[in-house]
Amino acid sequence: MSAHSEFSLIKQYFENTTAERSDVVLGIGDDCAVLQCPAGQQLAVSIDTLVEGIHFFPDVDPESLGYKSLAVGLSDLAAMGAIPAWFTLALTLPKIDTDWLAGFSTGLADLAKLHNIALIGGDTCQGPLSISIQVHGFIKAGEGLRRDGAKQGDLIYVTGCLGDAGAALALKQGKLGQSVMAKDELAYLYQRLERPTPRVEIGKKLVGIASAAIDISDGLVADLCHILQKSGVGARLDLDLLPLSQALSNVTVEAEHLALYSGDDYELCFTVPPEHDELLKLQFNGQCTRIGMITEADGLVFIKDEQLIELKGNAYEHFSSQG
Amino acid sequence: MSAHSEFSLIKQYFENTTAERSDVVLGIGDDCAVLQCPAGQQLAVSIDTLVEGIHFFPDVDPESLGYKSLAVGLSDLAAMGAIPAWFTLALTLPKIDTDWLAGFSTGLADLAKLHNIALIGGDTCQGPLSISIQVHGFIKAGEGLRRDGAKQGDLIYVTGCLGDAGAALALKQGKLGQSVMAKDELAYLYQRLERPTPRVEIGKKLVGIASAAIDISDGLVADLCHILQKSGVGARLDLDLLPLSQALSNVTVEAEHLALYSGDDYELCFTVPPEHDELLKLQFNGQCTRIGMITEADGLVFIKDEQLIELKGNAYEHFSSQG
Repeated sequence: MSAHSEFSLIKQYFENTTAERSDVVLGIGDDCAVLQCPAGQQLAVSIDTLVEGIHFFPDVDPESLGYKSLAVGLSDLAAMGAIPAWFTLALTLPKIDTDWLAGFSTGLADLAKLHNIALIGGDTCQGPLSISIQVHGFIKAGEGLRRDGAKQGDLIYVTGCLGDAGAALALKQGKLGQSVMAKDELAYLYQRLERPTPRVEIGKKLVGIASAAIDISDGLVADLCHILQKSGVGARLDLDLLPLSQALSNVTVEAEHLALYSGDDYELCFTVPPEHDELLKLQFNGQCTRIGMITEADGLVFIKDEQLIELKGNAYEHFSSQG
Repeated sequence: MSAHSEFSLIKQYFENTTAERSDVVLGIGDDCAVLQCPAGQQLAVSIDTLVEGIHFFPDVDPESLGYKSLAVGLSDLAAMGAIPAWFTLALTLPKIDTDWLAGFSTGLADLAKLHNIALIGGDTCQGPLSISIQVHGFIKAGEGLRRDGAKQGDLIYVTGCLGDAGAALALKQGKLGQSVMAKDELAYLYQRLERPTPRVEIGKKLVGIASAAIDISDGLVADLCHILQKSGVGARLDLDLLPLSQALSNVTVEAEHLALYSGDDYELCFTVPPEHDELLKLQFNGQCTRIGMITEADGLVFIKDEQLIELKGNAYEHFSSQG
């Protein structure tokens, strides 16, 4: 039983490395950070924990881990259409490893500066390696992108490509051969797993256009099902339209399965009323792919080669015990 | 490597158990919670992690653990003079134990309702038991109690009694005999360790009166030194004035040492300009004890039996490796 270590490590390795913001009245180093919320804006917050052996491998590059720890939170802000502002970091470490801390801090700070998000406080303590980050962003009152706004007839879109992170994970786990792969394609897939791009810019622009949105952390089917459940609707997905990268298609014949069920891509899945579809295409030419349509009926069905296929079971795991 | 479990356990065990608040625009179950900050108020936030084997014993009663996990955060809000509003919970569990979750949730919810603080979101995942809670509160712009406002001549006060939690910890670790102790005194000490009272009401009333404040999580000397360092002042503590409980004095001859150096009491230590001292006494009769005075010189000195004793070293540990 030890006392709190307060902000010492946070101060030493992380202070003044991230964005500087005038709305941080009092930053790292007091009992609380003190923050100024802008008038007319609401606050969007999300907390996520990454645990060694569950969310990342013990041998992960600390710089990539720092990057990804923040990317996961930024992706949640993106899915709400929020503008990133502040984050806190609760870091549990087995021991003080200065090289590790320097690397982790660098990866975290790089992404933080890119998105103008400031580290405002944190906690460090001793224990098995885990990282909790809470992100805070702003959205205009009433304009946040929620999961419960999808309506029958809305078109379903995703950003980027799907399944890449899942393929990289399978490669790391030795579940896919990689001997025939080009080096740059391999690097691309690992980059997608270890340094996902939170779609913050796209998320902000979707405000006023999208009727519902979510980020794909658990896999397309699982996350789309959250929208369907919250909105009380169904969906028809056209499997022939799934955006698959060349690298993914080259590495496995299971590309479609990975695109549907594997997580960690941190792309956005969102729905757009048909009347906004032209606007969407103008704004996001080439950044999003239409993959289906919201239906009245419950449940999710797939179309492939003009055949209807019903989804059996649910890929969503409430509490995974995988190592 | 498993996907995120999202808010499933949080929803199942914690939704609608804490306070209900109209400023929660969107609560548990979307990518982010959405919150309405009141006009003219600033946001105070703090995150703390409790890890099994470091901050609590593996056999701790889950209800007490739920209570304490939130109490630690509320104590940080108290030290800023903030009014509690919202909190998030990131819970890492080795397995799903429904009895444990029910107990933890009950202890957490009891304290949350008492302080009208609402759970707005969280994350659950699998791993070694640890709990991160971030609290959010409101303070009027510019009125937060900081660590850096103590001035020469200010009087130093603490709430409640000191050293009780440290004595309870020592008892649990078998470092103090307990055979001669009255049962109710023993119960009192354990209660102080396992269910500390965050001094939220006192903290709020200190706004406009205290010049600096901190909560005592690392021990009086360590935490007072934070005020001294931030404020660029020194202090003289009168050891004969330390508030010690009868139970503490009965259980050990080391009461004074525990009061100075042991943590986890979650009392407040604060400084008051002499001109506010009468107001303080009127407002807090019997709830606070004057224990010393802020001096110009660097460092902390003790007075005992009218003798000056200089403090050697610093009890503050930046990163404890104690098990």
